[in-house]
Amino acid sequence: MMTTFDPAENLAALIRCPSVTPAEGGALTALQSMLEPLGFHIDRPVFTAEGTPDIENLYARLTGTGPHLMFAGHTDVVPTGDLSLWKHPPFGAVIDNGELYGRGAVDMKGGIACFVAATARYLQKFPDRKPNISFLITGDEEGPAINGTVKVLEWAKAKGEKWDASLVGEPTNPDRLGEAIKIGRRGSVTGTVIVHGTQGHVAYPHNADNPVRGIMALLNSLLIPAYDQGTENFQATNLEITSIDVGNPATNVIPAKATASFNIRFNDTWTADSLQQEVSRRLQEAALNSPFRQGKAEPVNYELIWGEDPSHVFLTRNDKLIDALNGSIKAVTGKQAALSTSGGTSDARFIKDYCPVVEFGLVGQTMHMANERTSLRDLENLTAIYEKFLEDFFA
Amino acid sequence: MMTTFDPAENLAALIRCPSVTPAEGGALTALQSMLEPLGFHIDRPVFTAEGTPDIENLYARLTGTGPHLMFAGHTDVVPTGDLSLWKHPPFGAVIDNGELYGRGAVDMKGGIACFVAATARYLQKFPDRKPNISFLITGDEEGPAINGTVKVLEWAKAKGEKWDASLVGEPTNPDRLGEAIKIGRRGSVTGTVIVHGTQGHVAYPHNADNPVRGIMALLNSLLIPAYDQGTENFQATNLEITSIDVGNPATNVIPAKATASFNIRFNDTWTADSLQQEVSRRLQEAALNSPFRQGKAEPVNYELIWGEDPSHVFLTRNDKLIDALNGSIKAVTGKQAALSTSGGTSDARFIKDYCPVVEFGLVGQTMHMANERTSLRDLENLTAIYEKFLEDFFA
Ligand SMILES: [Zn+2]
Ligand SMILES: [Zn+2]
Repeated sequence: MMTTFDPAENLAALIRCPSVTPAEGGALTALQSMLEPLGFHIDRPVFTAEGTPDIENLYARLTGTGPHLMFAGHTDVVPTGDLSLWKHPPFGAVIDNGELYGRGAVDMKGGIACFVAATARYLQKFPDRKPNISFLITGDEEGPAINGTVKVLEWAKAKGEKWDASLVGEPTNPDRLGEAIKIGRRGSVTGTVIVHGTQGHVAYPHNADNPVRGIMALLNSLLIPAYDQGTENFQATNLEITSIDVGNPATNVIPAKATASFNIRFNDTWTADSLQQEVSRRLQEAALNSPFRQGKAEPVNYELIWGEDPSHVFLTRNDKLIDALNGSIKAVTGKQAALSTSGGTSDARFIKDYCPVVEFGLVGQTMHMANERTSLRDLENLTAIYEKFLEDFFA
Repeated sequence: MMTTFDPAENLAALIRCPSVTPAEGGALTALQSMLEPLGFHIDRPVFTAEGTPDIENLYARLTGTGPHLMFAGHTDVVPTGDLSLWKHPPFGAVIDNGELYGRGAVDMKGGIACFVAATARYLQKFPDRKPNISFLITGDEEGPAINGTVKVLEWAKAKGEKWDASLVGEPTNPDRLGEAIKIGRRGSVTGTVIVHGTQGHVAYPHNADNPVRGIMALLNSLLIPAYDQGTENFQATNLEITSIDVGNPATNVIPAKATASFNIRFNDTWTADSLQQEVSRRLQEAALNSPFRQGKAEPVNYELIWGEDPSHVFLTRNDKLIDALNGSIKAVTGKQAALSTSGGTSDARFIKDYCPVVEFGLVGQTMHMANERTSLRDLENLTAIYEKFLEDFFA
């Protein structure tokens, strides 16, 4: 049991399990063997859905008195990419010059390793306290996220579980430990626009209807004007066109169809609904007022198809939780962490429906890249921050 | 020899030769057998170039006195397309309800068939006249046009041939025989724009550079403002974007590259050179002033690649030639033909460097489509127009 006090040893054990989504890879079993000696009761719910792989998850529960804190995260990792780019094997957990290398080192086996060590230290330091702590760990965060956190939450709630706060161990710091905690996330919606035209010869454009003209007009309207200028807690809403495709190899032929996809990361100016209405409105207006229609009277003939399941924007407004985390960071690193809402989505978007949630973990610089790694010093400091946070939260 | 007096019989013989580019299919041999009895000397030059199929051509020469008229055209045809759409076999030359069906009926075995009949009738009507007439017929008009008309012209010039005028038998009438002759053609240039960006995650656009933003700005500048408003003899210059391609299936990824192709049909406001300069200028300006750059200072990073061999714009200003053709059309159909320069390119773009050239043939409505066909009445009337034109030209 002594090994769980050392976050680097915990992390090395987790990295050596090749748990690329959807494979469990032994990672949840390794975590179970760390938590059981600490007194946690372990469940390993497996969830399934048609068209997606079965996913193993882990819910560990230490039952006590007082408020209930959930630590949340994932043991699955993204693929290694080109192995020749790695200085050390991605599942080798090699330490080189004070840094521990491996896929998942920061995203986010490192966060889990530190929270296990912090819990072990806390329990040893306060043998009389009986805190309510749970670990909600999925193997499906980097994948479709269908059989992961969202289903474990439902399953645990059905068992009668309730939480007072959640801490997610994702890497939230851009460059140095202590820079930023996440207190919310932008929402995300994805859409596809298809414009139908009429094929023809480029020499006879009046006999054809070039869908590229139509899609240019529609996409211009999605890019400008800006959706907002940002809000107190969020950066500005941003739309990126991720692809435009026509696939016409003949330079003397006007094509019949053009397709474009876009993604919008949006702030609390909008709900997913109101933003989708705004996009629909812009497209309708642009279809009627295209400057590229060569005098044709009919509006641009288009379809708008929304991607499934938008991510909803959220903001955690729980000063006690945020202050406890910030105080711990200040005590260990001397830094005043920024309250950030930028970046991609995380499973916090599901947890926010059950309890206040904040996110803080390692430095994300190398996440999803070759040579993903963390310094041993960051591991030690993050463990100290988490331990201080447990002390404050349960004080 | 009597059969060559009937344009429908000539055309049926030509349609039955399946001469889809680059196949000769027997069509030039059939034409040779019509012209030799009329006193023509026949050459069948074959031209070759690396990377393209060998092409058979035909040059037929009736030597006499006075001006030299060249009739020009092609026996190759475009593919049949879906056979199930054809009412009669595309190489069957079936006559149904006064119409002759077959691939090439109007584009342009029909024009050749009528000119052969007109020549036969003229020679019979004026047995004492010895006109200078040549047929310059290629098998490579619908293909790359590398081993066709352009090389036959060079080859004939090297033999000492000179022409006073040329009549091209392409289908020039949109709906009814006699509506339009072509006295020039717009030019054509093709280009490809490639924008290089930086791949990244849509949640971190400031760490990426979306090339779709760049290509949207560049393409907007190519579409607006208009290049000109048209000229006395030409419709307005027109640009069509024929494809935009990114090929990014991941809606959470900003892609690295975007590519677009365009074609411009241009009038005598421009030369190919001056138009290419205008396009380059618009792109440079748009690259510096993109409204979509999200505050990035660097210009859009793009390449512009021109397609090979622009077609040059030309206009035939030979009143005697045009009046002779128009007078013949008026005499036979009662119509005043419009002097058109619209539509696609033709081999007239090569001939114009050797002598004045005009184009007049059948009704183009069904060209390149299933059930390509011509009425027998149009065949008879076009033959009469060509015969009258020969009389006037050699008068
Ligand atoms: Zn993660
Ligand atoms: Zn043709």
